[in-house]
Amino acid sequence: MRYNFSEMVDRRHTGSIKWDVRDNELPMWVADMDFRTAPEIVAAIKQKADTGIFGYEEVPAAYFEAVQHWYATEHDWAPNTDWMRFVTGVVPALSSAVRRISHLGDNVLIQAPVYNIFYNSILNNGRHVLSSDLVEENGTYSIDWTDLEAKLADPLTTMMILCNPHNPIGLIWQLADLKRLAELAAANHVTVFTDEIHGDITDPGYGYTPFAAVSDAAAMNSITAVSPSKTFNVAALHAATLIIPNENLRNQVDRGINSEELAEPNAFAIPGTIAAYTQGAEWVHELNATITANKQLLTKFVGKQLPKLHVIAGHATYLVWIDCHEITNDTKVLCDHIRQTTGLYISAGEVYGGDGHRCIRINVACPAERLEDGLNRLAKGVASFK
Amino acid sequence: MRYNFSEMVDRRHTGSIKWDVRDNELPMWVADMDFRTAPEIVAAIKQKADTGIFGYEEVPAAYFEAVQHWYATEHDWAPNTDWMRFVTGVVPALSSAVRRISHLGDNVLIQAPVYNIFYNSILNNGRHVLSSDLVEENGTYSIDWTDLEAKLADPLTTMMILCNPHNPIGLIWQLADLKRLAELAAANHVTVFTDEIHGDITDPGYGYTPFAAVSDAAAMNSITAVSPSKTFNVAALHAATLIIPNENLRNQVDRGINSEELAEPNAFAIPGTIAAYTQGAEWVHELNATITANKQLLTKFVGKQLPKLHVIAGHATYLVWIDCHEITNDTKVLCDHIRQTTGLYISAGEVYGGDGHRCIRINVACPAERLEDGLNRLAKGVASFK
Repeated sequence: MRYNFSEMVDRRHTGSIKWDVRDNELPMWVADMDFRTAPEIVAAIKQKADTGIFGYEEVPAAYFEAVQHWYATEHDWAPNTDWMRFVTGVVPALSSAVRRISHLGDNVLIQAPVYNIFYNSILNNGRHVLSSDLVEENGTYSIDWTDLEAKLADPLTTMMILCNPHNPIGLIWQLADLKRLAELAAANHVTVFTDEIHGDITDPGYGYTPFAAVSDAAAMNSITAVSPSKTFNVAALHAATLIIPNENLRNQVDRGINSEELAEPNAFAIPGTIAAYTQGAEWVHELNATITANKQLLTKFVGKQLPKLHVIAGHATYLVWIDCHEITNDTKVLCDHIRQTTGLYISAGEVYGGDGHRCIRINVACPAERLEDGLNRLAKGVASFK
Repeated sequence: MRYNFSEMVDRRHTGSIKWDVRDNELPMWVADMDFRTAPEIVAAIKQKADTGIFGYEEVPAAYFEAVQHWYATEHDWAPNTDWMRFVTGVVPALSSAVRRISHLGDNVLIQAPVYNIFYNSILNNGRHVLSSDLVEENGTYSIDWTDLEAKLADPLTTMMILCNPHNPIGLIWQLADLKRLAELAAANHVTVFTDEIHGDITDPGYGYTPFAAVSDAAAMNSITAVSPSKTFNVAALHAATLIIPNENLRNQVDRGINSEELAEPNAFAIPGTIAAYTQGAEWVHELNATITANKQLLTKFVGKQLPKLHVIAGHATYLVWIDCHEITNDTKVLCDHIRQTTGLYISAGEVYGGDGHRCIRINVACPAERLEDGLNRLAKGVASFK
């Protein structure tokens, strides 16, 4: 490996939200990795810092070309640069789109269990959450199409938030599913906001498919949000891109992000993203190999030591979803017990909705040595849980 | 001088919004300085970059202590750190406060001519702009108290935006004026949002008074916004602070900035601001001496070469407001003419409202050599204007 994914970086007392824990505790919760980002990004930021000039800036063509280059080379999709808009983050842009695209009192459709912050973007804006829960069978989640179609057909459903790939279950949607979903959404005049922030983090050999790439119906009826934030562990770079092929829809979203001041980059967002998307591919490929190995380590460990827990096998994200229903239907109690007895801090699934109350989410984006520590704590915590 | 304020930094073709002009043009419009920021800030940013870790971060106590230190040492006011909230910018925070503090259809009071973006924050949120225009007499602007009191007493007026010091006229408000204003606002239950981002840039010997420092009435009924952005020329650092002594008001504003994702700093906002506020005083004092010298140069030049133009003598900001009514009442036409014939790009006053249509605003925050170029272009443009 050219890059180092085994360094045990000490993040305690650095202001990190993930690592704001007691000294004996080990955090494996929020989606923030324990690896230093790609050195190419650091170099680009330092080069910008050296100019000493941090005034009001335009987003240059080179930024959008870098996004296009990344999607063309990594995901076999070359969106027009005209379709793109810089935004300071996926979540603020989602909230803005909810306000611009749907109306007060409308339903916004999601597929629980799903990223908990989606609920905030809907509820904080006075819209209703309508979930077509994913259905789990033998460790695999799938869409209940009858239910989904009925909910898309509800006249008050005007928007859907897709999570592609799906957090927290790590699922890469199949092409056929995305196509069918695109057709149903278009037929029911439901605009799809697709959060594709986890799309770069997939097991080697298992690429994800950008929603807008699957069909004309998908492209013309969707807002795609991408960002280097998860991929390169740069949440605090505050950089993301919306890709909106439909001119009318793009215009509506544009007004929102501009009047809400989401369209102005900080001084480092542009050079950092350009470096990531033009020089960061090898770093990501090595990261993905590291994460895959960690997921295998966890799966093997749980299979052997914790037979009542069932790992949901996902090929995307560094977040592992584990079904614990054989020991509890309230994993909040389990997670509290594990944290209190072993110091391991993982996410209880209830906040994601759906069947999350019986599941836990573990972040495995850390050196294998740290993961092993976490797994031993997990085994100890589960063993003493009644 | 320890720092260099005479370097002719070439900002053309760098993505700068200010410098997005033709090669023969000279921009002296938007509030963005042509000086490199304090080297202490650059060093702090590079130190942070070197960690390679840019995950989700908390705002540390050291940040708020740095803000307190700066106001205590520079402005003789030591606000409690408990009163402070980090925000990503003054304008987004203002827009958020408008939404939280006032209601749809309410009046938000301003004092035109004033910073044009205030209008956007009011109008984009469905509130009405109500201006108590400042009155100019013999080159000095003052408040029409009868008018102001009547407009504060309007039952639909729920919020006032104060610009302290006042952009674009460069006025430092007197203590007595601020006290009287605070009493009237409190008596009429009008919450004051005070934009104090120009407060650090004053002529040596002419400090500004923070609004919340003038009385209990002012403190308990106001939201103060401060930032290193103008002072240190770091608009793209995306860092600002709200100071809200009233717990109930603070709580209301808090909900807005959190649900609208304005409370999370990018990776460089915190170290950059701490460096500015703890190590940047000497740089600012030298900057202020430079700006004062530039304002004197301009005033002398205009007095001699352009007797029909009248410089409004302000002791704050690096923006000079010039009354042109002896040659035109529509400075948009004048500014277009100047730009077309000489390449000098300055701000026509109409966007600031009030009597702005007869005024121009010139940004003098540049090396004296560049200012002289601008003044010669100004004289040439005015001379050929009919």
